[in-house]
Amino acid sequence: MGPGPASADPRVLRAMSAQLVGQYDPVMTAYMDETMALYRRVFRTRNEATVLVDGTSRAGIEAVLVSLLEPGDRVLVPVFGRFGHLLREIAERCGAEVHTIEAEWGTVFEPERVEEAVRRVRPKLLAVVQGDTSTTMNQPLADLGRIAREHDALLYADVTATLGGNEFAMDDWGVDAATAGLQKCLGGPSGSSPTSLSPRAVAVLDSRRSVEAGLRADPDAPAPRRRIASNYFDLGMVLDYWGPQRLNHHTEATTMLYGARECARILLAEGLEVAVARHRLHGEAMLAGVQGLGLAVFGDVAHKMANVVAVEIPDGVDGEGVRRALLADYGIEIGTSFGPLAGRVWRIGTMGHNARKDAVLLTLAALEQVLRAAGARVGAGGGTVAAQEVYAAHDARHDVAAPAGAVA
Amino acid sequence: MGPGPASADPRVLRAMSAQLVGQYDPVMTAYMDETMALYRRVFRTRNEATVLVDGTSRAGIEAVLVSLLEPGDRVLVPVFGRFGHLLREIAERCGAEVHTIEAEWGTVFEPERVEEAVRRVRPKLLAVVQGDTSTTMNQPLADLGRIAREHDALLYADVTATLGGNEFAMDDWGVDAATAGLQKCLGGPSGSSPTSLSPRAVAVLDSRRSVEAGLRADPDAPAPRRRIASNYFDLGMVLDYWGPQRLNHHTEATTMLYGARECARILLAEGLEVAVARHRLHGEAMLAGVQGLGLAVFGDVAHKMANVVAVEIPDGVDGEGVRRALLADYGIEIGTSFGPLAGRVWRIGTMGHNARKDAVLLTLAALEQVLRAAGARVGAGGGTVAAQEVYAAHDARHDVAAPAGAVA
Repeated sequence: MGPGPASADPRVLRAMSAQLVGQYDPVMTAYMDETMALYRRVFRTRNEATVLVDGTSRAGIEAVLVSLLEPGDRVLVPVFGRFGHLLREIAERCGAEVHTIEAEWGTVFEPERVEEAVRRVRPKLLAVVQGDTSTTMNQPLADLGRIAREHDALLYADVTATLGGNEFAMDDWGVDAATAGLQKCLGGPSGSSPTSLSPRAVAVLDSRRSVEAGLRADPDAPAPRRRIASNYFDLGMVLDYWGPQRLNHHTEATTMLYGARECARILLAEGLEVAVARHRLHGEAMLAGVQGLGLAVFGDVAHKMANVVAVEIPDGVDGEGVRRALLADYGIEIGTSFGPLAGRVWRIGTMGHNARKDAVLLTLAALEQVLRAAGARVGAGGGTVAAQEVYAAHDARHDVAAPAGAVA
Repeated sequence: MGPGPASADPRVLRAMSAQLVGQYDPVMTAYMDETMALYRRVFRTRNEATVLVDGTSRAGIEAVLVSLLEPGDRVLVPVFGRFGHLLREIAERCGAEVHTIEAEWGTVFEPERVEEAVRRVRPKLLAVVQGDTSTTMNQPLADLGRIAREHDALLYADVTATLGGNEFAMDDWGVDAATAGLQKCLGGPSGSSPTSLSPRAVAVLDSRRSVEAGLRADPDAPAPRRRIASNYFDLGMVLDYWGPQRLNHHTEATTMLYGARECARILLAEGLEVAVARHRLHGEAMLAGVQGLGLAVFGDVAHKMANVVAVEIPDGVDGEGVRRALLADYGIEIGTSFGPLAGRVWRIGTMGHNARKDAVLLTLAALEQVLRAAGARVGAGGGTVAAQEVYAAHDARHDVAAPAGAVA
């Protein structure tokens, strides 16, 4: 129940235990095509260039940044948490000229502030995290695509921690590149990064295309100018491998592909909007529950991600001791945070397979016991009762008959 | 039965279906420590710095090259197949000054030739593939470590296609960096790259260490000079994450770690030498079998990898048609090759879970049928009888009682 990785959906794990097939077996290439189509629906995009990058979420981030950016290119990163700093650092390592604007941790940016900075910096790329789990904030993106286009910039969004559990509309919002991971709202393990690129982003790759030396007729031909600085993360090559050419690059991580495919199948069978609403419901229940336990919540709750809440550690309570007791005695993991919030908040997630009523109520019940044992003043039942009220109100709104024994 | 990925050991797939645990759960960190210890035994090294890189084999290659090489550093790559060209290309993208020597496809290098080039180029890094599946050649490495040390160079070996099925002795041979994959002799899926670094290699990383902006007290402090050009592949950071500091970097790909751990457990339970001997036996049986079918074998057989054989496609036979028929009608995949060998050879593997008598005999039996249907002249039973003779001779040498019904 931390900020991710969360427990995987058992169906995903079963899909990952299937025997491998060869990388050019028609079964495998059909799975690849199917996975592309599934993730187009998950990202809500028509982008042909929708693939998996074989690595954890930050592999997807780095693949996009190193493929789009050349040394000296200007990048603007609005930073509102740890993962904004990560975008900035990766862009710097690409040799880009990186400009940042910063929002206080626990807040998000108004679009006007981003627009002012875009006008001033004139970046080739505006790179932003949608949900930064370090602060739990969810940056509204709907206006940023328009701003980027008006100023001839590309917009990249890191949706690792939000996709599938918070609204994201790649095409409607004008996002040119987006990358995710499986280990948050998608209910899978880390190790595969779904990635989508708009035709505008692909045009940048096309201007930097190259074919690997060992696959060319003349391996000693000079390298193209402006070649991408990484082979593994050269998204032009990755697209040539996933596309009809099937030009050999890496050996697709078969088991991770089975997992990524199953994550998307399960999500789309539930329905994207239904899954987002489910994350909203259980996130609200968890929020009410921790408040019901008398705990203060960090940050601008109106802009909180649905799937994680940052809870201030009460004075006099040993935050790490509480985390240890929850894990050792109740088998429940919650997170701490980074930088200015390290040791100041716990982060409790409700995402993917863990965005469930029983997971929320068990966590609140256990947290109450552990807090009391740690010397905090907590009302008996305050967490679960508050959460149950959220569920009851939801059921009343949706005309759900309460099961026998449920709190009214 | 291609050159890899091969079928995974079912035990590995079962291990990968275990539920996830949090990345700092003591269970997970103990698994990480255990995986490091297991791969030290697999690489035959005492290197503390033995970890997994989260990505396919070429992720491990790129991590080593980008972490050890700075722009302008001199690298020497002896190229004897497609994957030598890959090392060269990745090193070029790192900005290194890359020098190559080339051996004709189907041959390997004499150590004297490498030594002459090292003396001339004076590289910081000598980078070589052990087994290049494109040609099936196995480059002897035992002398190269000595040569590298005598000329103050580091030696990197890409052992993706050989580890676990061919002899490799990292410390005895003086190899400073080695990377592998799971999908060849280790019997797992691609997507995780076991990587080991000698203290000499770690000293290079230490001179380039940095801590990620979002984890530092002062995220705006200037970046260290000589910082590694990739964040994801910054092996200094990867070591800080795997080491006792547990400094957050990527989120370890839990399921792939379960798989990598199980691959090593199975291999070491069998015994490294026993596994190498098993690959030798089944490789010899497959070699004898294809020769028994009247097919010519490509390359210097004395230096062939144990786990793959390149078979020349007979004149007048449609190579792709044979591959398609084997897959569609018999469920058996074999490979083609790259560059000068594309369309000229088939590559047949006997590796990992597929280095088994039944897999060898079924493949030979099916190949005979498909070749005959394709119009090739093949003697009835020539493949399986020749392979059975190899098995019988092996059993006689090892005093194995023939099971009832076995060919004498």
